[in-house]
Amino acid sequence: MSEMNLGLTEKLKPIHARVAAMIRDEIIPLDEEFLAEVGKEGDRWSFTKRQSEILEGLKAKAKERGLWNFWLTNSDQGYGLTTVEYAYLAEEMGKAHIGAEVFNCSAPDTGNMEVLERYGASEHKEKWLKPLLEGKIRSAFLMTEPDVASSDATNISMRCERDGDHYVLNGEKWWSSGAGDPRCAIYIVMVRTANDGPKHAQHSMILVPADTAGVEKVRAMTIYGDDDAPHGHLHMRFTNVRVPASNLLLGEGRGFEIAQGRLGPGRIHHCMRAIGQAEMALETMCRRSMRREAFGQPLAKLGANYDIIAEARMEIEMARLLCLKAAWMMDQGDPKAAAPWISQIKVVAPRVALKIADEAVQLHGAAGVSQDTPLARTWKNLRTLRIVDGPDAVHRRQIARQELKKYTQEKV
Amino acid sequence: MSEMNLGLTEKLKPIHARVAAMIRDEIIPLDEEFLAEVGKEGDRWSFTKRQSEILEGLKAKAKERGLWNFWLTNSDQGYGLTTVEYAYLAEEMGKAHIGAEVFNCSAPDTGNMEVLERYGASEHKEKWLKPLLEGKIRSAFLMTEPDVASSDATNISMRCERDGDHYVLNGEKWWSSGAGDPRCAIYIVMVRTANDGPKHAQHSMILVPADTAGVEKVRAMTIYGDDDAPHGHLHMRFTNVRVPASNLLLGEGRGFEIAQGRLGPGRIHHCMRAIGQAEMALETMCRRSMRREAFGQPLAKLGANYDIIAEARMEIEMARLLCLKAAWMMDQGDPKAAAPWISQIKVVAPRVALKIADEAVQLHGAAGVSQDTPLARTWKNLRTLRIVDGPDAVHRRQIARQELKKYTQEKV
Amino acid sequence: MSEMNLGLTEKLKPIHARVAAMIRDEIIPLDEEFLAEVGKEGDRWSFTKRQSEILEGLKAKAKERGLWNFWLTNSDQGYGLTTVEYAYLAEEMGKAHIGAEVFNCSAPDTGNMEVLERYGASEHKEKWLKPLLEGKIRSAFLMTEPDVASSDATNISMRCERDGDHYVLNGEKWWSSGAGDPRCAIYIVMVRTANDGPKHAQHSMILVPADTAGVEKVRAMTIYGDDDAPHGHLHMRFTNVRVPASNLLLGEGRGFEIAQGRLGPGRIHHCMRAIGQAEMALETMCRRSMRREAFGQPLAKLGANYDIIAEARMEIEMARLLCLKAAWMMDQGDPKAAAPWISQIKVVAPRVALKIADEAVQLHGAAGVSQDTPLARTWKNLRTLRIVDGPDAVHRRQIARQELKKYTQEKV
Amino acid sequence: MSEMNLGLTEKLKPIHARVAAMIRDEIIPLDEEFLAEVGKEGDRWSFTKRQSEILEGLKAKAKERGLWNFWLTNSDQGYGLTTVEYAYLAEEMGKAHIGAEVFNCSAPDTGNMEVLERYGASEHKEKWLKPLLEGKIRSAFLMTEPDVASSDATNISMRCERDGDHYVLNGEKWWSSGAGDPRCAIYIVMVRTANDGPKHAQHSMILVPADTAGVEKVRAMTIYGDDDAPHGHLHMRFTNVRVPASNLLLGEGRGFEIAQGRLGPGRIHHCMRAIGQAEMALETMCRRSMRREAFGQPLAKLGANYDIIAEARMEIEMARLLCLKAAWMMDQGDPKAAAPWISQIKVVAPRVALKIADEAVQLHGAAGVSQDTPLARTWKNLRTLRIVDGPDAVHRRQIARQELKKYTQEKV
Repeated sequence: MSEMNLGLTEKLKPIHARVAAMIRDEIIPLDEEFLAEVGKEGDRWSFTKRQSEILEGLKAKAKERGLWNFWLTNSDQGYGLTTVEYAYLAEEMGKAHIGAEVFNCSAPDTGNMEVLERYGASEHKEKWLKPLLEGKIRSAFLMTEPDVASSDATNISMRCERDGDHYVLNGEKWWSSGAGDPRCAIYIVMVRTANDGPKHAQHSMILVPADTAGVEKVRAMTIYGDDDAPHGHLHMRFTNVRVPASNLLLGEGRGFEIAQGRLGPGRIHHCMRAIGQAEMALETMCRRSMRREAFGQPLAKLGANYDIIAEARMEIEMARLLCLKAAWMMDQGDPKAAAPWISQIKVVAPRVALKIADEAVQLHGAAGVSQDTPLARTWKNLRTLRIVDGPDAVHRRQIARQELKKYTQEKV
Repeated sequence: MSEMNLGLTEKLKPIHARVAAMIRDEIIPLDEEFLAEVGKEGDRWSFTKRQSEILEGLKAKAKERGLWNFWLTNSDQGYGLTTVEYAYLAEEMGKAHIGAEVFNCSAPDTGNMEVLERYGASEHKEKWLKPLLEGKIRSAFLMTEPDVASSDATNISMRCERDGDHYVLNGEKWWSSGAGDPRCAIYIVMVRTANDGPKHAQHSMILVPADTAGVEKVRAMTIYGDDDAPHGHLHMRFTNVRVPASNLLLGEGRGFEIAQGRLGPGRIHHCMRAIGQAEMALETMCRRSMRREAFGQPLAKLGANYDIIAEARMEIEMARLLCLKAAWMMDQGDPKAAAPWISQIKVVAPRVALKIADEAVQLHGAAGVSQDTPLARTWKNLRTLRIVDGPDAVHRRQIARQELKKYTQEKV
Repeated sequence: MSEMNLGLTEKLKPIHARVAAMIRDEIIPLDEEFLAEVGKEGDRWSFTKRQSEILEGLKAKAKERGLWNFWLTNSDQGYGLTTVEYAYLAEEMGKAHIGAEVFNCSAPDTGNMEVLERYGASEHKEKWLKPLLEGKIRSAFLMTEPDVASSDATNISMRCERDGDHYVLNGEKWWSSGAGDPRCAIYIVMVRTANDGPKHAQHSMILVPADTAGVEKVRAMTIYGDDDAPHGHLHMRFTNVRVPASNLLLGEGRGFEIAQGRLGPGRIHHCMRAIGQAEMALETMCRRSMRREAFGQPLAKLGANYDIIAEARMEIEMARLLCLKAAWMMDQGDPKAAAPWISQIKVVAPRVALKIADEAVQLHGAAGVSQDTPLARTWKNLRTLRIVDGPDAVHRRQIARQELKKYTQEKV
Repeated sequence: MSEMNLGLTEKLKPIHARVAAMIRDEIIPLDEEFLAEVGKEGDRWSFTKRQSEILEGLKAKAKERGLWNFWLTNSDQGYGLTTVEYAYLAEEMGKAHIGAEVFNCSAPDTGNMEVLERYGASEHKEKWLKPLLEGKIRSAFLMTEPDVASSDATNISMRCERDGDHYVLNGEKWWSSGAGDPRCAIYIVMVRTANDGPKHAQHSMILVPADTAGVEKVRAMTIYGDDDAPHGHLHMRFTNVRVPASNLLLGEGRGFEIAQGRLGPGRIHHCMRAIGQAEMALETMCRRSMRREAFGQPLAKLGANYDIIAEARMEIEMARLLCLKAAWMMDQGDPKAAAPWISQIKVVAPRVALKIADEAVQLHGAAGVSQDTPLARTWKNLRTLRIVDGPDAVHRRQIARQELKKYTQEKV
């Protein structure tokens, strides 16, 4: 185990500077325009001409500059960044709504690409991984279901039955993020392939092309009223959806094995993007507090605003350091040892970012809740982070059990 | 000063029972359908046929049953309820989105009707108050402006200049709630009629019919992405808007005098409706916690859920009692003595309701943030309460100054 | 059920005024001197001459003025105050360390006197109740034990076995408050008289004179280092302590029955005294914040102090109203219905008072933690309130179960 | 600037292991006995024979093993540890009351030795620094005064006037920590040498031997009732205290310059010791939660205890990482850049440790507030940390101003 360097490495510094500059100077200025375009040509579930121009234009620039696919951490391919190094980039990407996608680093594609890279057959790699790496298609990860408490993932129930050379899928999924995107071509689906045996060996992951017969988009789920079109978080119904048996990844009953590897880095990325959003909210709050006056003074000097700003700074620093430590744990190569650290940041980072976004809203008054700042939208997006990939309560439970195990041999 | 009875009076009990029953049995079952109709016939700013059916149908029933205009507190007209008694009804009305309007008790009409009743000329009463009391038209109250910190209302700047027998208004307002409603016929507008003299004597209130030339609806402000159509919170522009001089209420420079009287009861109503929403959220949370299972147990028995439920119950009880005390203070007839109590509930009630709504969201997981429960919408509506009618910080400031004054003669 | 009058009644007003005046003008000025005397004549467990002078002098005055034994609520004896009325007096008494005792209203005597009044034989009344009512002796209530989690009182294990006309007690008690007082003459002891049968019918209460053979004072427990001498919270050991069988109250197995009736009012008194202490702390904080300067301004105008003061005011008002509501519930005559309300205040009132005392300490800087203000001592006393008579967690559990029962027939 | 390695270095690991082992195996087992000895031989302000045996015995062992004077960071002398490395040792030392002194690393000596090392004349070094480094004498730092708000240190007012070859001091100090120790031989005193000129150039530091005529020990201040004898936090009076002019350090008016350099590392040490105390409290809480049962289950499984434990773990990790980052900033050699980081940990570390200590108290019930665990004492000591070396409010103010300066040229 090497030194616990949580700072910017010499290797990362120039990359980080270029990514940060591109986000601040080229991406953020187009972010609101991109979002305001949704549905302007009638269909919320297609990109408008202008949206494609903005997004593909920025992607082309990033690719050309070699700022692409940073997420392939600890790998021979690409940059070979460590998770700690990538984390610093994820923070920057979090500052714009389209920040991650411009660099082909957005969820759920990064996790899905990792799964395909590790567990996909060569034909899968050719057909799905290659265009994903090039940013030509997108993908979705179908796990959560409406009828069971998915916080306990052993409840997942979509049936997947072998029928000769095929598997046949039946059931419903919801919150299939990105499944609304017209470019979304492939789903990785968590399914139940057995009803008995050890609890964590009854599930599998399987590839389902988006255009397979029997796949039905039931409705778009909304997040505090927002459908996040055209990305979307869809409620899907599978009726006798038939795919080749070779689409099942790694083997029957190994779904949780894949899930664990897949979710760790994704959670770190989410959390670091949340830190980026917290930084943006704090900056917005500071600027407003000096510009706006009431009772003859700038808001900064009124009420508890100094304290609110100071607390925000402290909480960001602590949450960031914890995320970096979790990333460093991940880099040590033992996902099981890293797991409780990832649980910690999953609780902490969204909470901190939500609090700061909310304080920023409050300091902006009515403008804060409105379309005139990105704060309300940021808050809504952050709010779901306390639920996706395991709600706070489940992560706290994991942390506590880990803690108690230090002092007992018994099951806690 | 009589006894501080904060309970349900004998007089109120049967009324309360009938209102509560109508809300639970007749209004709540139609609430979601009413909301889902918005824009279904193309225009978000008109009511659909079904919406009118629902709303006017319920209003007719309420009127017929004599459950109408309860807000006329401490008055010879109507029921003559005390503010405490009305508060209990407001709590019930808060449980449905259209709850208050069905009984002709919704903001901003109640406050506007009080102003017209107290300060309007008889022609104003005939033209505006009468149809408002009958629920035939609606109204708006235009105060907040985009370019000044309206938390310090002495900043308000819309020009209103005398020109012969008329006043001419120029400037912008925003967050004009209800101005989007096609039935909204009359605005009460806070304007600046002087630029010198005592700070609280430079403003006035004036009546502006909605169809006056020069009134322009610039855009609908959104609340966490929601435009609240067809009610709406509009950004308005007034360009040489000309109204008869007699439309100015009470006299030039007396705007704050009217505002103070107007805002107190309205804040109590808002707060008690928030309590109603908190009760709904708690009920939803309790029911879910017993129905949904994870890790082999109902959610109620997992994590800190018992504590979350217990804290919610305690906070609701305390916030309700404080609201009732503030209402009782208002009933004693000295608005100045009641003011710090109203500041207290303005801080407390939305905070409590927001916290409980948020906990309820969390306990519902992904369903909580979605369209499948009213929780996300409730949260969004409650969130604005921490800003409208004075942000928390301003109210806390008032409370602290009041407290310090007990111990000093000096200005604090 | 009558009106829910939570205000000062006409009957109470003059009494309240006299009690409040005596506390402020006569008791508080001697409070610190009384406390500083402890141990000055060598033995911490006796009163010094000056202590006796102060305490007996004030008691004599109070008695002479008829300000005595207010706690006999809803009774023919004494004032016949309601619990709500008494609560207002308890708040005042909480403002001085010796406030309650001066009026013969201090714990644990009030609860013990109620038990004797209701369940004692006439000989017990003559021997113990009469001098207690006259303030001539004091008493202790021995419940908690060192070896079991007494938060679940069914764990209580002190053996009490019948032997002819006597009972023989063996075991240990701790936190026997007041047992250090040289005037403490009688103990009411919770004992186990059976090891089988229904869980809540295995315990009994029995009277044990302090001078009985076999009673041993093991040591004084300290509260954050403070032994609270000469009152004391003692660790006691009973070795073959033999008392007449008639000393057993109400009957074998009825200990919990007595406990429930005994603890309710006591908790209300504790909580209202805590409110009184919170008011004192807030006053101290306000005065200091205007008197002390830093960075060229009074502390009141620095940092978040306005907000701290405002929050303190709001929390006191809410906690007081909740206590009064709980007292009113108690006055309705159904202790079972009042129980969850008492659980609520047991959680809320100490928490609020502790928070305000702590903020007051912080605003005083180093003086706050020292002997130069009563704040540190107040905090220490309040801190135990979160534990005695059931820790917060147990009360929250009760509240949550009560809440969930509204929606289910099942055991929660 | 080198890598930001916040982990245990290879160099530190063996030292850390030896220090940790000695604390756990040799010091902690004697800690309570040492404390219980205070005053047993009559005088609280002398060490008992047994206390001397324990303390000098342990010191001799530590010295013999070369575990001594680690605090000389970034220096040629001693170990030459970085601040980050030392921080890890400070955490361990925080776990026992006498932990730091055993290794000659206790406050206020470490800071005083740094001052003597940097600014002392050779005679001062010979006379005071040498025996301090050997652990033969102790010292005190006299800064805070009773009559001014010392949170704004420019208020400090002790007069120090030149009189020929001497300075003459008059005034009062309080909270002179360690001045009660019979071994305390030398004071470093912050004094006012000018009444005009720039605000931060009116003060100086001067050496005053403890036995100088005119030095009077007025009284021992208490911390929540505890006088911390024989160390003590004394209230001192100086009446015409005369010392050689050469005792003035660095030059008149340079007191703040010395103070800034002195306080930074000391604050880091305090904070890391607080982290050590938080770890001890969490361990105690975990062990108790599995050992103690109520309602048929270990406490761990009841109420919100899992969540309390999980939150404690997260908060400790975050606070520790922030302290290490602040230490690393200090190691970069620019105290001004490090200052806001030190302000952050001064707010965060005591707060976290206090919260966990308080939760641990609560989980222990009555035992938690008593002498039967170190928790109550730990809490009391931690509580003062929110005040000494600047109260939270002052540090938050510094952090906020630093934050706002990023966005403005104006004074904030």
